[in-house]
Amino acid sequence: MKRWVVGVDIGGTNLVVGLVPVAGGPAVALRTRATGPERGPEAAVADIVRMAEDAIGETLDREGGRREDVVGVGIGCPGPLDLERGVIIDTPNLGWRGFPVRRRIAEALALPAVLDNDANCATYGEWWQGAGRGTATMVGVTLGTGIGGGLIVHGRIVRGASGSAGELGHTTIDFTGRRCACGNYGCLEAYASGPNIAARAREGLEAGYRSVLTELVEGDLERITALTVYEALVLSDAYAHEVMTETAKILGAGIANVVNLINPEVVVVVGGVTRAGDHLFEPLRSEVRRRAFRSAVDACRIVPGQLPETAGVIGAAGIFLAERAGGA
Amino acid sequence: MKRWVVGVDIGGTNLVVGLVPVAGGPAVALRTRATGPERGPEAAVADIVRMAEDAIGETLDREGGRREDVVGVGIGCPGPLDLERGVIIDTPNLGWRGFPVRRRIAEALALPAVLDNDANCATYGEWWQGAGRGTATMVGVTLGTGIGGGLIVHGRIVRGASGSAGELGHTTIDFTGRRCACGNYGCLEAYASGPNIAARAREGLEAGYRSVLTELVEGDLERITALTVYEALVLSDAYAHEVMTETAKILGAGIANVVNLINPEVVVVVGGVTRAGDHLFEPLRSEVRRRAFRSAVDACRIVPGQLPETAGVIGAAGIFLAERAGGA
Repeated sequence: MKRWVVGVDIGGTNLVVGLVPVAGGPAVALRTRATGPERGPEAAVADIVRMAEDAIGETLDREGGRREDVVGVGIGCPGPLDLERGVIIDTPNLGWRGFPVRRRIAEALALPAVLDNDANCATYGEWWQGAGRGTATMVGVTLGTGIGGGLIVHGRIVRGASGSAGELGHTTIDFTGRRCACGNYGCLEAYASGPNIAARAREGLEAGYRSVLTELVEGDLERITALTVYEALVLSDAYAHEVMTETAKILGAGIANVVNLINPEVVVVVGGVTRAGDHLFEPLRSEVRRRAFRSAVDACRIVPGQLPETAGVIGAAGIFLAERAGGA
Repeated sequence: MKRWVVGVDIGGTNLVVGLVPVAGGPAVALRTRATGPERGPEAAVADIVRMAEDAIGETLDREGGRREDVVGVGIGCPGPLDLERGVIIDTPNLGWRGFPVRRRIAEALALPAVLDNDANCATYGEWWQGAGRGTATMVGVTLGTGIGGGLIVHGRIVRGASGSAGELGHTTIDFTGRRCACGNYGCLEAYASGPNIAARAREGLEAGYRSVLTELVEGDLERITALTVYEALVLSDAYAHEVMTETAKILGAGIANVVNLINPEVVVVVGGVTRAGDHLFEPLRSEVRRRAFRSAVDACRIVPGQLPETAGVIGAAGIFLAERAGGA
């Protein structure tokens, strides 16, 4: 009989829950709803549990099988997390503090559970079933409100000494550069996250560049987001193209660092900004090639993710299986 | 009966050969001689083989045992190397190209051999028997003519897709910064390697700073090296102190990156510059603390190596054992 793992992806915007076959395969019976973090973590857990029970019921009805065929829950959540204790320490994107999310979900579903951060889950999902399949060494890069990262080395996720490995967004690419929200200076995230792409676009327009961007936001430059820049790009706007090329070059410097350090077989980039496609990936690849060692560059593909909606759910389930192989 | 591995450390300056007990312990019967790379690789291999036979003879005489108790050879060498084929591709520090060093040494000693790069060997040596003992995640940093690095993750050395992982010296800390010999811009090595420490010291003196450095080199600023800066530091020279503090801050930016990425339990720094002791380590630790995530910094010690003369030999032998466990 087919066995399943529940995958849970807690995002700042949406909660996503689905069932992933233990043997691998797409997530099924997907449920999504707005996180509404301001409702507090207990309300979100109640939703997650309802969505999971619903997905389990639908799947077992359709595929046959019994409740015991669902072996556990993998949970992905923005950090910082205490992975050992399964606790959300203090997540700015959610505003939740000191919440034992793993235990609450495990108890409510009467299933063993594992917690990991969202970037590790997305990375693991792409490694297990997406663009990183079959590699021993992979770097995942998540581009969004922040820039996250995950590392696979020796075919396993890298957590490090305190569970915070992979923080690519907070590596310095300009040691005298601008202060980042994390306290460091010149972090990659301070230049190339979604909000910082928008900020750089605004700065140029305020300095006199002309672009369809101004029309797209009806002159209210504060309304520019990374998505607006993408929309202008689709309209063949030269300035938006320039902003995206600059973003790609900055990302390229950060990714070249991790290519020289980790020497991965593949760098998988996920997140909204990757919709820019070749506008992003072509200058990004050139910049990495310009900066990193040839032997490392030649050995490395830089590609978009293949699981844009479900990498987090699939990865959370996969990490459960990797961590708790044999159940518990 | 005690079993042994031959450790070989091929450096730009010296060849070092010794015997390392399979069960762990200090390297014994150490032999050192000048590399004289201009003599070509065959001459160096002849020396290495002679030194190894000599060390084996001495050790078996003293400890008892037979030739079969020597199980193999680990060889460390500056890169770039083809680790799979055991070949020196093109090492600028030696001027040797396309040389099958592993096969030559293995055949001459009639022992199986493994080749790895010098920074990986020093890192592995410190991890196996030095400052990184007992950790699962470690970063080794070698400060010298260049800046190298090695990573231990999941208790194993990280090689990456083409054997070039760990190149900390060629991570960018200033993406608009100065061109590095590797072709990249703003590499850590372009600021904080031995020769670049000396270059920054000279630049300040040429700009009018006063320092005992000028006397130490009898006014010939071209003679300033990182060692001269260290000598001035010992003499309590304020300018040398400033140069060292600046070096520590730059290194701190690079090490903070790897702390945020790998989240190691320990960063072990080896090489001549570490003689500066607290003049280097205190500002270095402060800078890493200022830049990296608190949870990662709190979990990480930053310390000098404990095997200044023999980390390379011990590590090369240890990598042989890790790679060829059970012989072959």
